[in-house]
Amino acid sequence: MPTLNIEPLTQAAFAPFGEVIEPAAAKEVHSINEGTATRFDSLARVDVSGADGYPVISLFRAQPRRLPFTVTMLERHPLGSQAFMPLGQAPYLIVVALDVETMPHAFLARPGQGINFHRGTWHHPLLALERESDFLVIDRAGEASNCDEIHLRESWTIEAL
Amino acid sequence: MPTLNIEPLTQAAFAPFGEVIEPAAAKEVHSINEGTATRFDSLARVDVSGADGYPVISLFRAQPRRLPFTVTMLERHPLGSQAFMPLGQAPYLIVVALDVETMPHAFLARPGQGINFHRGTWHHPLLALERESDFLVIDRAGEASNCDEIHLRESWTIEAL
Repeated sequence: MPTLNIEPLTQAAFAPFGEVIEPAAAKEVHSINEGTATRFDSLARVDVSGADGYPVISLFRAQPRRLPFTVTMLERHPLGSQAFMPLGQAPYLIVVALDVETMPHAFLARPGQGINFHRGTWHHPLLALERESDFLVIDRAGEASNCDEIHLRESWTIEAL
Repeated sequence: MPTLNIEPLTQAAFAPFGEVIEPAAAKEVHSINEGTATRFDSLARVDVSGADGYPVISLFRAQPRRLPFTVTMLERHPLGSQAFMPLGQAPYLIVVALDVETMPHAFLARPGQGINFHRGTWHHPLLALERESDFLVIDRAGEASNCDEIHLRESWTIEAL
């Protein structure tokens, strides 16, 4: 079975798939609240479409996965972006693909790094590591179906960190 | 100078001002990702209005305030909700008011508790405690002015935790 190499999560490498949410990724940094706080502004845009859709904030509590892990499926949300911000200090894996025929990418997020999948980006469901991990999630609510799921023709293994 | 008593942050007490973002506040809890994660769903709604507005995700890095602290002003965002989720383990204070003539409320958020101010809610800028604290912030971007600020006729002191 082919393997996926793990890449470090950087803004440049992740750009085709979405945004990295971390202070270093800010294009605009403002001093606010009379100098008592810094705003790392607009790190990600919440992109919700469809007449009945609206953005919501949820929490995900994810059980850790063990490596080696085999990627056999991907999903995408055609009607909205989806952001994940870790609330703890454990690393996690992000598996994304430009399309379902090409090799996915596996990125390792360091503590403090969140991500926002662009609307329609193929990705694997959350892959927490090491321990039960909470994430703040910003995505779309609404009646319309917003999840396509595909079983990949070829499976991919992530061997180890 | 009159003092504000500090109240614990609970969903019921905070309801007139917005939502508390924590697992216990979830009306719907779903098992997702083949049982490997739990979704505490739609804890807060991102409410953005105005033709040119859209929701964004930013990071705030706040310097800690010391008590006693005097509340002399409040602000509100007439065009959008504003959510704060702490990324660290320090507590923080939330000062809100139904209007600018009545006594504000001061709530103490425990670690793991985020909040979402309803659109137009009068509140004090972020009051981090103990140490420099990062927050994920979900609010509105756009050209239109979205911050009213008022100097209160009466000041209020928060004495101690």
